[in-house]
Amino acid sequence: MRKFKSLVPYDEALEKVLEYVPPPGTKTILLEDAMDVVIAGDIYAPVDSPPFDRSAMDGYAVVAEDTYLVAEDSPVTLTLIDSINAGEVSRHKVSSGTTINIMTGAKMPDGASAVVMQEFAARHEDLVDICKKVAPNTHISNRGEDYCKDDLVLKEGATITPQAMALLKSLGFRNIEAKVLRVGIIVTGDELLQEHREGDLGKIIDSNSIMLKGLLQKARCTISYHALVPDKSDEISKAVSDASIVSDFVLITGGSSFGEKDLVSGMLCNYIFHGVGIKPGKPIGFAMMGVPVFSLSGYPVAAFTQFYLFVIPFIEKAFGSKLLTTVTLPFGDAIASSLGRREFVRCIVRENSVLPVRLSGSSMLSSVTKADGFVLTDSFSEGINSGDDVAFTYFFR
Amino acid sequence: MRKFKSLVPYDEALEKVLEYVPPPGTKTILLEDAMDVVIAGDIYAPVDSPPFDRSAMDGYAVVAEDTYLVAEDSPVTLTLIDSINAGEVSRHKVSSGTTINIMTGAKMPDGASAVVMQEFAARHEDLVDICKKVAPNTHISNRGEDYCKDDLVLKEGATITPQAMALLKSLGFRNIEAKVLRVGIIVTGDELLQEHREGDLGKIIDSNSIMLKGLLQKARCTISYHALVPDKSDEISKAVSDASIVSDFVLITGGSSFGEKDLVSGMLCNYIFHGVGIKPGKPIGFAMMGVPVFSLSGYPVAAFTQFYLFVIPFIEKAFGSKLLTTVTLPFGDAIASSLGRREFVRCIVRENSVLPVRLSGSSMLSSVTKADGFVLTDSFSEGINSGDDVAFTYFFR
Repeated sequence: MRKFKSLVPYDEALEKVLEYVPPPGTKTILLEDAMDVVIAGDIYAPVDSPPFDRSAMDGYAVVAEDTYLVAEDSPVTLTLIDSINAGEVSRHKVSSGTTINIMTGAKMPDGASAVVMQEFAARHEDLVDICKKVAPNTHISNRGEDYCKDDLVLKEGATITPQAMALLKSLGFRNIEAKVLRVGIIVTGDELLQEHREGDLGKIIDSNSIMLKGLLQKARCTISYHALVPDKSDEISKAVSDASIVSDFVLITGGSSFGEKDLVSGMLCNYIFHGVGIKPGKPIGFAMMGVPVFSLSGYPVAAFTQFYLFVIPFIEKAFGSKLLTTVTLPFGDAIASSLGRREFVRCIVRENSVLPVRLSGSSMLSSVTKADGFVLTDSFSEGINSGDDVAFTYFFR
Repeated sequence: MRKFKSLVPYDEALEKVLEYVPPPGTKTILLEDAMDVVIAGDIYAPVDSPPFDRSAMDGYAVVAEDTYLVAEDSPVTLTLIDSINAGEVSRHKVSSGTTINIMTGAKMPDGASAVVMQEFAARHEDLVDICKKVAPNTHISNRGEDYCKDDLVLKEGATITPQAMALLKSLGFRNIEAKVLRVGIIVTGDELLQEHREGDLGKIIDSNSIMLKGLLQKARCTISYHALVPDKSDEISKAVSDASIVSDFVLITGGSSFGEKDLVSGMLCNYIFHGVGIKPGKPIGFAMMGVPVFSLSGYPVAAFTQFYLFVIPFIEKAFGSKLLTTVTLPFGDAIASSLGRREFVRCIVRENSVLPVRLSGSSMLSSVTKADGFVLTDSFSEGINSGDDVAFTYFFR
């Protein structure tokens, strides 16, 4: 019976994985449906934004020089020639001695070079007393102030946020080109049920499928294939083959060790590595079977760990996009860890300090549902001391 | 013409807003569709998880005491009476002198009290040499180790993550009760177009609708009403009335100042406050019109600011759920701010240091699309110094 002869160091294994990152496909998506998608190329402004000089205040559009004679208790009086609201355009031109009443957002009338806020003006029928000096361009939101035509608006790999949607909408975009990564999921195990059935003693409900679908959704991927397959090598082979046709990469859970029934290990003959110095999640394997295939553990927490430590960096490189957030914070406790192995320490953040979630069983789902994120121990240290600065990475939320 | 007589301090205004938080509704949602929803009540485990004692390793199920005589170069030999895979249950009972070959995840056979890893055993047909002493319970994943029946699994207000989905699935849940907040959006402004049309000089595309929909989606809310309404007081009134019937609260953008055309200000006669000491976003108003109504600015960045400073805390209280992540980090630059006003400083995080996004126009969407989150200045300080610790809040991403 085989064993893991030697465990590959995490950094080395991750480097291998990143060598096999596939180029993502692309797809046109309606802007309205584009939340969280990764953009496929740099986006440039097709027009100036704002598209014209606008008043930034409710007030009076003037020739700035007209106000230079304003003194305390001595306003300058201008003749009111028009009033415009936002959305309206005046047919009149402001010249020295005249003014147009203008609302916030309205296009600046020709000839005007500044806006006097209404608080500093007093209207008497067709005359307006201006009580404040203004320099040219005061209270004007200039054409192109946000973006000029051909300015870079969003970089390839950026993800679409609510504010990016607003920006793209204001620039007239209706669609965007999104990067697409299609992922196949194969869950193996004779012990797995899709739903609980009475009398199925010795079996458990498959929770890896829903977890991996959720993680891939959070990682902006598309599920292209999913199958729950029994521990039969021909069925697993067929599933891998089917999945690889429609997927950019494949995740298989279960059977990744070297037990008698670990058929996945036996079948993935082209392992690039198998067995990595991490805990939990040691038996991870990675192979090229037409497309990259990650052989993950059947234990949900081990599969979750392997997903965060290998699959997310792989997706991030494919998308050219940072999906996770890491900050350096002080560790508020002390933990021991084993030399030569990197531990995925599930942690919470309390009062700006990182605390490990202490639970008896590291294989327990409660350890990841109770945590905010993780810290990865160094392989050359025997633990983390209280007060040490650690790189804490938030889980998707 | 009216002005803001005095600005309400932010903390005071926020306190008022939080007094009017409505109780959310609830809805049953399929677990598969429940990502990101907020759970409506505490969830308890209906069964033990795992549901039975399982082997945590591939190996041999033994009576632990049988191994106590193992010495170096002197294994103990047991009789193999069965082999079971995950998902199978042995009909045999392990008694002293016998063992069952067991795979990871398989139910522990009756009588066995520990598992010896296969690495420490050698099989010769029906006999197995055991080369390692094991204490009772070694390599057994115990029934109820993750959760015992009636243990609290998830608290009311928790949001469903991929790992929470896995946990609920493994416990046999098919549905969950989710909290629902229905929000009406009314966007006002004669200058607004839904899409760009040639020749509409003086008009701009409405970007608030898509932004607010996106923000509300990120905040786990349901859009119950949406209308783009011209600056006509009867139409605005009707929209507010229609929206309030189907919504738990309403957001209106535009017309929140005191200009001649600021009809929203004039109409919301029941203002609880109007005008707050924040920048941008000063003209925010809040009223009860059957349901709570937020009167937000027409400028997208001001509306965005008001959403983060008022609407999100309001939603968080309604859901009993923390939606945003705040960490304390050093400020890597120096900025000035005005006394008596709290500034929404858009920032990025670089090398664990918070840096302000420096842009000329604070009303520009680029200032929020380029930022990772924000810092809110104190009203009693004149700025932030380099090296000061600041509370940095991530935008949704």
